[in-house]
Order: sequence, then C-alpha cells, then structure tokens
Amino acid sequence: MVAELVFVGTEILLGNIVNTNGAFLAEKCAELGLSCYYQTVVGDNKERMEETFQQALSRSDLVIVCGGLGPTPDDLTKETAAQVMEMALEEDPHTKERIAEYFRNSQWNVIPENNWKQVLVPKGALVLDNANGTAPGLVMEKQGKRMILLPGPPNEMIPLFTEQVMPYLGKKQPEVIYSKMVKLAGIGESQVADQLQDLIEKQTNPTLATYAKTGEVHLRVTAKAENKKEAKRLLKPVVKEIKRRFQDAVYTTKEEVTLEDAVVKLLRKKKWTVTTAESCTGGLLAGRLINAAGASKVFRQGYITYSNKAKRNLLGVEKATLEQYTAVSDQVACEMAVGGAKAAGADICVAVTGLAGPDGGTERTPVGTVYIGCCLHGAVKVEHYQFKGNRQKIRDYAVVRALNLLRLCLLEE
Amino acid sequence: MVAELVFVGTEILLGNIVNTNGAFLAEKCAELGLSCYYQTVVGDNKERMEETFQQALSRSDLVIVCGGLGPTPDDLTKETAAQVMEMALEEDPHTKERIAEYFRNSQWNVIPENNWKQVLVPKGALVLDNANGTAPGLVMEKQGKRMILLPGPPNEMIPLFTEQVMPYLGKKQPEVIYSKMVKLAGIGESQVADQLQDLIEKQTNPTLATYAKTGEVHLRVTAKAENKKEAKRLLKPVVKEIKRRFQDAVYTTKEEVTLEDAVVKLLRKKKWTVTTAESCTGGLLAGRLINAAGASKVFRQGYITYSNKAKRNLLGVEKATLEQYTAVSDQVACEMAVGGAKAAGADICVAVTGLAGPDGGTERTPVGTVYIGCCLHGAVKVEHYQFKGNRQKIRDYAVVRALNLLRLCLLEE
Repeated sequence: MVAELVFVGTEILLGNIVNTNGAFLAEKCAELGLSCYYQTVVGDNKERMEETFQQALSRSDLVIVCGGLGPTPDDLTKETAAQVMEMALEEDPHTKERIAEYFRNSQWNVIPENNWKQVLVPKGALVLDNANGTAPGLVMEKQGKRMILLPGPPNEMIPLFTEQVMPYLGKKQPEVIYSKMVKLAGIGESQVADQLQDLIEKQTNPTLATYAKTGEVHLRVTAKAENKKEAKRLLKPVVKEIKRRFQDAVYTTKEEVTLEDAVVKLLRKKKWTVTTAESCTGGLLAGRLINAAGASKVFRQGYITYSNKAKRNLLGVEKATLEQYTAVSDQVACEMAVGGAKAAGADICVAVTGLAGPDGGTERTPVGTVYIGCCLHGAVKVEHYQFKGNRQKIRDYAVVRALNLLRLCLLEE
Repeated sequence: MVAELVFVGTEILLGNIVNTNGAFLAEKCAELGLSCYYQTVVGDNKERMEETFQQALSRSDLVIVCGGLGPTPDDLTKETAAQVMEMALEEDPHTKERIAEYFRNSQWNVIPENNWKQVLVPKGALVLDNANGTAPGLVMEKQGKRMILLPGPPNEMIPLFTEQVMPYLGKKQPEVIYSKMVKLAGIGESQVADQLQDLIEKQTNPTLATYAKTGEVHLRVTAKAENKKEAKRLLKPVVKEIKRRFQDAVYTTKEEVTLEDAVVKLLRKKKWTVTTAESCTGGLLAGRLINAAGASKVFRQGYITYSNKAKRNLLGVEKATLEQYTAVSDQVACEMAVGGAKAAGADICVAVTGLAGPDGGTERTPVGTVYIGCCLHGAVKVEHYQFKGNRQKIRDYAVVRALNLLRLCLLEE
C-alpha cells in the first residue's frame, strides 16, 4: 500500500515549530510496511489544502493528514477532506458526549462556542477517540482510497496513532508486520553498516534499517508474515545473528529501553550505587542518568567540578597531577573517578574531563579531546576519545560514551 | 516573492531523521519577507523529483531545494534540477580546485572517484562555496524563475544559507528586510499574545511574530524599508514599546544571545561566582549554564543531590527540615540554596527541588511541583511552580525558570 503524509499548519510553513510529527509518522509507516514517496506541508488555506489532498489521493492509496482539526475557524482540515472525499458532515452523539465530558472537568464547564464544530464528523467515518484533547481522529474510506485525519499536537497524535491507527492499518495489510529494535552503543554507523553489508544486501524479509542517533546506532528488523508467530520466527535468527556480530555493543532489543535504562537496570540487579564526576559535560551525564525509571535507587549524588580547585576540593584530585598532566588527561580522569567514588561512598563512579571548545585547543590537546574514567570497587579504566563537532555535539557524545563505559564495566564485573 | 521549499532525502521519508532544515529555512524565508505556501519532501528518485520541481516552479518564483547533492550515484538533485531548468552541466575549475584542496587535507589525498561528479555545475549557475563540505550551493536563474540548491547536512547548509544565500536574496528583494529578536523569559505565550494584541492586530510594517520555546517566548519584529537605516528607524519604537510592556521579562534583543548567556554576562559584569544545587533537574541546570561562553569564569562547581542524605551531607540541609516539610518544599529549597552557596564559597546559589514524576505524586505535592531557591549574599528567594507535562518537560521548564530566577535576582541587586 502506498501512503502519503500531509501536514497542515501555517506554523510549520513559517518555521515557528519543527515538524517532529513528520519523522514519527514516517517511521511508523515504514514499520507498517507502507511505501511513502511524498510528504507535503500546506498552510491553513482551503484552496491549497484541497489541491494538495486531491493530488495525494490521485497518487497514493492512503493519505494521512496531521493538523488543522482544532476548534478555531481557520482549522479547515476536516471540512476540506470531507468535501474532497464527497462525504457530508453530521453531528456525532458519541463525540459530542466526549467533548461535553472534557469541558465538564475544566474551568469552563460548558462546551465553548468554538468547540461545537468538533462535534461534526464525515458521515460514515470511523471515529477514533482522542484521550488527550477534543478533536477525534477520523478514518474515511471511499472507492479504495483512505484518508486518516489526526490532531496536530504530538501529545494527542502519538498515543492516538500508536494505540488506534497502527492496529487499524495493521489489519488492512494483507500481512502482519512485526519488528524488533536492536540498539547499539559505542560503535559508529558506518562500522555497523560495514559489518552488516551482507545482511542488508540480501534483505527481503526481514528487512533491516539503520538509524543513527548521537553515539548510538539503532537497527530495526522488520518481518512480514501471515501471522505474528510466523513473523517472530522469521525475525529470531536475524536478531540472533546481529547480537552475535556485535556482542556487548548491543544494549537492548526492546524499543522503549534507553541506554540509561539499561545502565540503571544493571546497577539495580547488582544492588550497586553510582555517582558522577563531571567537568566538560557539566551535569549532563547525571541529568541523563536520572531519566531512567528507578534511578533514585542507584544514584544519590553527583559532582560537577568545572574548575581545577573544585576537582581538588570535591574529588581529591592531586594538585601535582593537575600541574603535571593538565586537567584534560588520562591521569586526572582516573583520579576524578577514584575520588568521586570515595567521596560519595558509591560502588562505581564515572568521570568525564575534556575540552568541548570552541576555544582552548592546543596541538597536544585539540578541541574534542575527552577522557572518561570509570572506577568500580577500586579498579579503574580510562578511555580517550577525540570527538568532532561543535561544543554541544562533543558534550553529547561524551555523555553517551560515559554511559556506555559504565555499562561495559558493569557487564565485565 | 513566493518561495517554496523542497527537501530531498529517503532518510526523511523513512523517518530516520527529523527535518530540522525545514524549520530553519522556513523561518529564514519569513525573515526575508518571502511568502511560503508549500514544503515538499521527496525521495532520491529522478521521476518524482522532476515532477516535484516542475510543480514547484509552476506555482512559485523561487524554489529552494535542500539535499541530494552528495557524491553517490543516488544523489540526483543537481542533475534533475539542471534538466528541469534546461541548463547543461559543465566542469567548474574553481569547484574542482576546492574539492581537490578538501581532499588534500584528508586521509585520501586524491579526489575519490565518486566526488568527480561534484565538480560539475549547471552552465551559468552562481556557485556558492561550501566551507564545510564538498558540494557547493548553486543558484540557477531562468525566465524569472529561480532555483537554489543546498547541501543537506545542517552544518553545511546553515552557514552557507546564512552567509551567502541570505545576502543574495536580500539584494533581489525590492526592499530591505531587517528584523530584531526580542527574547522573553518567565512569561507564557498566551500572556504575551494578550498583552501585544493591539500591536499584532495593527501590524503591517513592522510585523510581529511570536515563537514559543520551552519557558521562553521569542518575538521577531521585522520591518521592510528602502534601506537598512530606514528599516531600523521603523523597528526602534516597536522594540522600545515591547520592552516597556514586558520590562525585566526581556532578557535580550540580540538573536544569538541565549538565556544562559544573559545570566553569565550579568555575573561576569558583577564579578560574582555562581553554584548550583540540583535535585529533580539532576545536573541539567549546570549543563545549561556552562553552555554560555565564559561560564568557566563564574561557575566552578555544582552539586547534584538526588537523595535526602546527599542534601544533608553536601549542602547541610537539616534532617528536621526534611522530616517536617519533605524534600519537595519551600524550606528545603531555601536550605539547599543557602548551603550550596556556603559549600562552594560562591556569591550566589540556585537550588531546585521538585517532583518530575511520573510516580510519587500526592494530593499535597502533585507531580510537577517544583521549588526553586536562590541565595545571593545570604538573601534568599524561593519560588513555587506547578508545571504540566511529562518528566522531561517538567525538568526542562524547571531549568529555564531557575535560570530566570537567577537572572532576576542579579538584576534586582
């Protein structure tokens, strides 16, 4: 099935917001096995919207439209789509009741004038309840063509799509699509691609797609089959082969698990506590670690030691070490990790010191130089990295590498 | 002039990447006074690209195409655009020399086979040197229609557009477009819109656009005039009026200055040092603060005190205070701020304690409750917030509010 995405919103055309819905829906369509050849952004303008919908319907089987379902007069998506699909609008008692309920729980207590138009739905459309807003999702079908209308705010659209549209579209596909996400850290995208070239080249079913994230590579393995059991059977050897090739670089095969989740899970399993000693990342590593559910069980405190004096006072780094090797060195990373663990009374400490730039680089220590130390029950490991990119990028990479070093130290133990 | 944006890349259609170039170029076009009615994303497919370019040229004066200028055989943007514009490709000696130079400084030392195609440019096109990559930008002009081709990677596209395309397009406009960005913190978008309604309604020249950022509102004031001096003259009273209405909520009128930049600038002016004591934000506040240039002059160390014990040990919060009021309280925020300043020997300390959820909320302290304390030379101010949204959102809001409280305390002093 060929699908096409249309985004309605003057705020996208003016650059007021980044269209993150675009990437979300595109990835989900790929996951469902739908072919997508076009995405279009159009403003809240009836004529241009009509032209865009008609063109999309002429070249695709399914048109997913996102945005423009709000209550104000310039929200015209539903009216225009119904007209293009030649379906009349009628009041939907179920939606009316839901909207009334929504406002009963609000400060207004009655349905505001504007919201009455949201009670209308195209005759014969499937109505998808929106748990987080007043505009329902709508599915229209006519002569083999389908249009799906979704609200624009991501906190409304994403759950609606995941919980209702995915299963609906899944059923319309002749085959079941099932996928697994294999997430890797500490390895570059091109290295992953090289090591998987044979699998990628011969891919038909399952297929393999790589997604590069900062310091991580995610691999989506997708199988098509008559039923879920069969799809899972097809996936299994491929996932197993990926795990065999990348070993410890694989930190999860679960879509929802992040790198910090994996780290915190390992720590909780061992009942160990962790602390952080950060210089160039200045708190970002700790901030990322406590994203994980249950982080409070393993993380109690962390140190941000930006100046040399702070490294000495809070972590006990020796003055002589700082003078002899400078703050951005193997030796200082080592002392920071050892000192941090001791100061916090933690089982493990991960320490980061580096030069994120843009200034301060020298021939010996260019911008992007980062040392990451990890001290586990007194045993220390230090790694040296040379990252590329701007200040933000260097710090983001350092955070991911630090989390990964922590993970690898925990695995080794 | 009517402009249209086309993005070429299968990776956008598959959802592998978020199209941040879309928002960047859209905002810049608005800034230039260009009208944009459509954005299209199309894959690396000659036929569909040709159709898209032709349609865009038929309805717009200027088509900006981003992506697909790489060296691999599936990069077809230049070839297709030249064909649609009926311009032949020819070798450009200047570009050839630049690409050779690029590879002289690399590990390869010769131009790789693939990159030879990047030496070809449409005959008569204006070549815009790409300082950060091998694919130059290209401007084609024919019969009143213009196409501009830009490389896809943001680190190549953004400087190329800002430094070369903006001045080029600026000259093509009959009038000069000049704008100022007024940035506000600590005030909501709807509140800003309410207070500016009269200015927004009567806007013709200058125009006013609001951009909502997490915890901030940015206002772009744009004037059109015969020359820059005249445009500046038109802007001045509007910017002055905005500053009059929002007073201290305005932290800068410079495009490139961030909230943390403004805070660090104030600190440097007073020659004061700052420290951070973070619970629910777990390092994100310090991480943001050290984004600012010159942060190392004013920030030496910071504390992440996630557990109650850490709050006691590192910041000297009283056990009795924690027991009587709980960790998420006015009193604890106050003691964290006072204790942090003392421990670090800093002039000012900003402290954050709150409940970012998703679990742990009670009737008295629901998820989203955040207390922010600021201690400046012993004088303490504590603010109480109730944020909405998920864990990430609550923490991001808390960071912005903490930076802003810090700023306001510095202004008051």
